[in-house]
Amino acid sequence: MLPLALDVMGGDNAPDVVIEGARRAKQELGVELIMVGLPEVVGPLAAEGFQVLATSEVVEMHDDPASSVRRKRDSSLVRCAELVRDHKAVGMISAGNTGAAMASALLKFGRLPRVARPAIATTIPVPGSTPTVVLDSGANSDVIASWLVQFAEMGSVYSNEVFGVESPRVGILSIGEEKGKGNELVKEAYPLLEQCDRINFIGNVEGRDVMSDRIDVVVCDGYTGNIVLKTLEGSMRALAKAIFDHLGAGEDGQAVVDVALPKLLPLMEELDPDSYGGAMLLGVDGICIISHGSSSPKAIFNAIATSMRLADHGILGKLTSAVGS
Amino acid sequence: MLPLALDVMGGDNAPDVVIEGARRAKQELGVELIMVGLPEVVGPLAAEGFQVLATSEVVEMHDDPASSVRRKRDSSLVRCAELVRDHKAVGMISAGNTGAAMASALLKFGRLPRVARPAIATTIPVPGSTPTVVLDSGANSDVIASWLVQFAEMGSVYSNEVFGVESPRVGILSIGEEKGKGNELVKEAYPLLEQCDRINFIGNVEGRDVMSDRIDVVVCDGYTGNIVLKTLEGSMRALAKAIFDHLGAGEDGQAVVDVALPKLLPLMEELDPDSYGGAMLLGVDGICIISHGSSSPKAIFNAIATSMRLADHGILGKLTSAVGS
Repeated sequence: MLPLALDVMGGDNAPDVVIEGARRAKQELGVELIMVGLPEVVGPLAAEGFQVLATSEVVEMHDDPASSVRRKRDSSLVRCAELVRDHKAVGMISAGNTGAAMASALLKFGRLPRVARPAIATTIPVPGSTPTVVLDSGANSDVIASWLVQFAEMGSVYSNEVFGVESPRVGILSIGEEKGKGNELVKEAYPLLEQCDRINFIGNVEGRDVMSDRIDVVVCDGYTGNIVLKTLEGSMRALAKAIFDHLGAGEDGQAVVDVALPKLLPLMEELDPDSYGGAMLLGVDGICIISHGSSSPKAIFNAIATSMRLADHGILGKLTSAVGS
Repeated sequence: MLPLALDVMGGDNAPDVVIEGARRAKQELGVELIMVGLPEVVGPLAAEGFQVLATSEVVEMHDDPASSVRRKRDSSLVRCAELVRDHKAVGMISAGNTGAAMASALLKFGRLPRVARPAIATTIPVPGSTPTVVLDSGANSDVIASWLVQFAEMGSVYSNEVFGVESPRVGILSIGEEKGKGNELVKEAYPLLEQCDRINFIGNVEGRDVMSDRIDVVVCDGYTGNIVLKTLEGSMRALAKAIFDHLGAGEDGQAVVDVALPKLLPLMEELDPDSYGGAMLLGVDGICIISHGSSSPKAIFNAIATSMRLADHGILGKLTSAVGS
């Protein structure tokens, strides 16, 4: 199989965490990786058996996505996308500027046949159950109803491929379970989803269903999806911090933490977004995984593992078959 | 002061929990309450010193909001709204059908001067800090930019009155901190909020800020606000359950729970939505508190206490002064 292209410069803690995750993946999974980045960073990696591609520029986290991709033609991000376009890499991973990663993939790969708009599919961990896939979680702030049907089709393939869910249950995010509840977009999209025989549409779902075992794929506009995602991220972090603050308070606090922590570690592991490695941009003609800016080496490792598995399973062909006109 | 009207029939566990909460409020706060409901339910309450109003109908949780309010003219909900309209009650509280409570208040009270659309203001508990007020959290699924400015003005008054926040920081919910990020609605509303000198606008906020001490009032459309709220509700519940399942697992599980639980109780109390009693419909010409369908007696008690305080502080006059044209 072709190697995978890694944007070594992308992420809050790049390049160190990216390199560490890549080393682990190379060793444990035996995958071929092309390390793309500034020469002084990637140069030394050749001696470790990595393929390397030296580039002169870096897209920064705060750069404007569209213009930085046009302007910084020799950036690690743009070069990663070109490797995929030129069939020299099977896919790309970046933990850098999300908008720029999306823009470079869209610009260089192009879209899959019939796909109107690519969408970002994000994985929400569910305690004790299969994760929920939410899309779009940020690629398109404003959407039209027919795009949501394609998101549903692509999200179903993703849930099936990544989490092994047979006939994933698809819901549209709304503010009431009954048909007819929701904003104008939801009311318009509902009958289109209902008529689509390529998905297992179960109707409206509410915010409280996202982190539950009642649903596998949730479709919504990218504004709402991104807000749901970040609300969950923020509240989980706030709650986890508050719990440990409370457990650790008082004279016997340390003792209580000492007995509680080992019990809670498996749950923290289960809910750790790094366990899933990143979000996938679905609908472009190549594999593009966008990892969180604060990704750990574990996240990079998992993003690599997922990318290779998806490539191996022919995800692009399956997505193409799944998307109707 | 005038009494407060209570919809005794509203809520998943009505009338028992409503009556229990009312008894506590009557005893501890010495407030005058008009108990509105079916004669066999409210009749016996007269002997306890409650004012009572017997009505022949009940708006059910699944009833269509608009038509049930028009059709069930002698329902407890509609009669509560009429008591406020006729200046026989200072405000109303219902834990019943949210849409119907909103519709009856809007229909019977009318709107405050200049208010284009009323909005539901919901309180999000923040561990260790002042709660965040989110509006609209469900009254208007689709909104226009200028309404968001009024939501900001009304939300600021609410945050100040209920939580004592001086010059509440107002943010608009978006998908990036920088001006210019967001969907079309956000981009259009941003400059209007920036120009409004009656609020302390701090710009875009993200989902992760909602449950943080970085913000006091978050404005958004009612579709997004409702989803944020229910996402938080669902995830908090899922996480709390998972935490206790994990703490309690294994042979020593019960012992671990026994030491951890007393430490976590104050946090659970702090995060309990019942501590705030309910959401307020802001922008109608009367006090209308909509409590959660699953409200406990404690929620009803707190809703009563909040209503009386808001009435005492002349909230309607303050809202009227706050709302520009």
